[in-house]
Amino acid sequence: MKDLRQSVLKASGYHCPKRGEIDILKDVLLEIDDSGVITAVHQPEDSGYPSILNAARAGSRLSELPAGTWLIPGLVDLHVHAPQYPQLGLALDEPLEIWLNRYTFPMEARYADPDFARDRYRTLVEDLMANGTTTAAYFATIHEEATCILVDTCLEKGQRAVIGKVAMDNPDQCPDYYRDATAQDSLQGSRNIIDYIRSHPDNGPGMVQPAVTPRFIPSCSDETLEGLGRLAAETGAHVLTHCSESDWEHGYVLERHGMTDTESLDRFGLLGRRSILAHSVFLEPENMETIRNRQSAVAHCPLSNSYFGNAVFPLRAALEKGLHVGLGTDISGGPNASIFSEMRTAVSMSRLLESGTDPSRPPEERGAGREARIDFRDAFFMATAGGGIALDMPIGRLAPGCRFDAVAIDTRTAEGSIRIDEDRDEPEEILQKIIYTASRPNIARVWTDGILRNG
Amino acid sequence: MKDLRQSVLKASGYHCPKRGEIDILKDVLLEIDDSGVITAVHQPEDSGYPSILNAARAGSRLSELPAGTWLIPGLVDLHVHAPQYPQLGLALDEPLEIWLNRYTFPMEARYADPDFARDRYRTLVEDLMANGTTTAAYFATIHEEATCILVDTCLEKGQRAVIGKVAMDNPDQCPDYYRDATAQDSLQGSRNIIDYIRSHPDNGPGMVQPAVTPRFIPSCSDETLEGLGRLAAETGAHVLTHCSESDWEHGYVLERHGMTDTESLDRFGLLGRRSILAHSVFLEPENMETIRNRQSAVAHCPLSNSYFGNAVFPLRAALEKGLHVGLGTDISGGPNASIFSEMRTAVSMSRLLESGTDPSRPPEERGAGREARIDFRDAFFMATAGGGIALDMPIGRLAPGCRFDAVAIDTRTAEGSIRIDEDRDEPEEILQKIIYTASRPNIARVWTDGILRNG
Repeated sequence: MKDLRQSVLKASGYHCPKRGEIDILKDVLLEIDDSGVITAVHQPEDSGYPSILNAARAGSRLSELPAGTWLIPGLVDLHVHAPQYPQLGLALDEPLEIWLNRYTFPMEARYADPDFARDRYRTLVEDLMANGTTTAAYFATIHEEATCILVDTCLEKGQRAVIGKVAMDNPDQCPDYYRDATAQDSLQGSRNIIDYIRSHPDNGPGMVQPAVTPRFIPSCSDETLEGLGRLAAETGAHVLTHCSESDWEHGYVLERHGMTDTESLDRFGLLGRRSILAHSVFLEPENMETIRNRQSAVAHCPLSNSYFGNAVFPLRAALEKGLHVGLGTDISGGPNASIFSEMRTAVSMSRLLESGTDPSRPPEERGAGREARIDFRDAFFMATAGGGIALDMPIGRLAPGCRFDAVAIDTRTAEGSIRIDEDRDEPEEILQKIIYTASRPNIARVWTDGILRNG
Repeated sequence: MKDLRQSVLKASGYHCPKRGEIDILKDVLLEIDDSGVITAVHQPEDSGYPSILNAARAGSRLSELPAGTWLIPGLVDLHVHAPQYPQLGLALDEPLEIWLNRYTFPMEARYADPDFARDRYRTLVEDLMANGTTTAAYFATIHEEATCILVDTCLEKGQRAVIGKVAMDNPDQCPDYYRDATAQDSLQGSRNIIDYIRSHPDNGPGMVQPAVTPRFIPSCSDETLEGLGRLAAETGAHVLTHCSESDWEHGYVLERHGMTDTESLDRFGLLGRRSILAHSVFLEPENMETIRNRQSAVAHCPLSNSYFGNAVFPLRAALEKGLHVGLGTDISGGPNASIFSEMRTAVSMSRLLESGTDPSRPPEERGAGREARIDFRDAFFMATAGGGIALDMPIGRLAPGCRFDAVAIDTRTAEGSIRIDEDRDEPEEILQKIIYTASRPNIARVWTDGILRNG
């Protein structure tokens, strides 16, 4: 199966345009235009279906997914520390301070070397694409050149991305060998990357979009936070940052600014329609209100939170309040590079928020005292349409007007980990099995903008 | 690389003979006898090493793992409901009652059909072996014929196993269409399977061992529990059952027998050196004492517990008290067929037991109020040597006297999910990356008893 621009794809599959509502597509015809946008989705019962099918076949513009292979929207990873991929699976038993100072900051500092960056970023983008992640929001490093290399890599591999040069200039919280020398450097570097991305000759359709990226409040001076807020407003760039991730971090901001992360970020103009707040575990109810009012989004990173978050993000409450929420791996704070895995973890962590964890307490004192569980449908929504909404991009659905960013899941390959009972499993059960058990060998093909990028 | 009986394997790798102590093997020579037992492990600095190496080479008895491929002991899965594999990833959002009555019991009942059983058990055993699970403790179904088919399948595929016909005869808790008609039937069927396994012509070395398998106390009459206790004592068979899995189950036994599961199982003679108690989430401190005194083992199933356990098993406390503990997937209560994945989940769940989950509580009221976390070393121990100890089998270590049940992990394959920095990562860091990120494509070869079964 080749590229699908200016063609018609006959496929069965799933998407989830609205939280809780799985839309099962059975033998639909997806029309894709020459820029990779879905222009129509025809159901077999539509009157025009036979003629569209025949015309596409006659014009050799018809492609068809084989039986047992299901189409889903490409997965969206809202929180990736791109430079940390080489340490995926390391140092998870260390306290945050050692994790940062002995592993993470030295690792990120190595991206001063463009060759090192080029090699590592290529592996990362290839692996994420192979895992079905068609869109990623990336924290790069403080280095402009390496950040440009990440931009080039995404454009070359066809991964949709939001990318920011990390801004971190607070000498109290950043090591000498790895920080922006001044607030001015932070701001100028951020601006340079925005310009680089927007004027990139291969980025005509905006496959990569820029972000201002204050690492988190502790690592930034007020001057930098303020300047980045202005820069975001001026340029319309995304904002990538962390918010109330852990007891320590939440407490640090309360102490330094006398208010929560959310309030402080808002004061600096960093909460907008295109802001992605990683973690947000310790939001006060009024913080949720603010985030909803600003139409900012939360990148929920459940696996990472079990290591560094000290608690579970109250996901269901956030969804029910109408916040935009998607999923993030938080590579490498989360030791996993697959949004499939993150979907599963989001479900199981939500159960543990509801039930609590300590068996020595009676049930009524053990859990959160409220219904907190989500199900695979919610997880699928967040990994696809929810991620698209969070990023303010027309992705995550198999619907007219959306980019054709999609993944074909082969449920039959012996090397994979999905085992379908073809005679018995209902369509929604097949999706459930895909979400709970898919692994990389099941990810047969990956497209963005209608172009085959993998498989 | 072919079978390794009567040969010498030059390899690097890891095992964990004692909890907390990773033993790094660097270019060792493993001598394996003609029955598949490791008879010696020679370190490069040993005086006899060169002559053993040369003699093996001269006699064409030398095999060698390629660089970047690491040997670890085969993984042990202490809790698998074999017939539930076809529903892996289904119905996890359902309450236990619906999960059992709409999905699980009807599924298990289908194994009355030997052809169905043969096909599904083949897929299961092949998949578990491909995932590196060289030993599994299996609950089968109530059907003798299908249980014999599972035995045959393990022998044919070379998977070490403990297998029991499930005993369940309590009409209050079991559906009419799927239960033993009488206690006598439960006991006779259990005895027949023990005989079948012990007299099986292909089971000379005892690759498959029998178990009495009262599903759990709620599903068995007292007569059956008593008879199975006697049968275990008489035959020395293993005992596979569940213990204090959930609030409901724990409370049911308290109500019916006026004591905890542990006390009740002990009273029936079901707690012995070869008893494997799945879950055991709600153990009282004195229950832990009893289990330790009886030298029974716990099959910790962290992923399953997040769905059906209502809490997290206090693993670290159990390990520090000296209980035998290994890991179980609990297919299909745990939607995952990999002990690698279970190792990771054991670590992250232990963190959530320690920290608690509800961010609206202050830290001191949120968690279990004690150090509860384990690390990847503990997880590796449980998945290998700990599993071997639990089953009372000479497996789980790369040491003289142990069966050569082992897995070769290829850390370099592009299709896999391990990314090593060959210049930088220390040996123990490589193991850590293997544990956190390995997937099926990284599992290059699988042996039991020195015979190559996969790869």
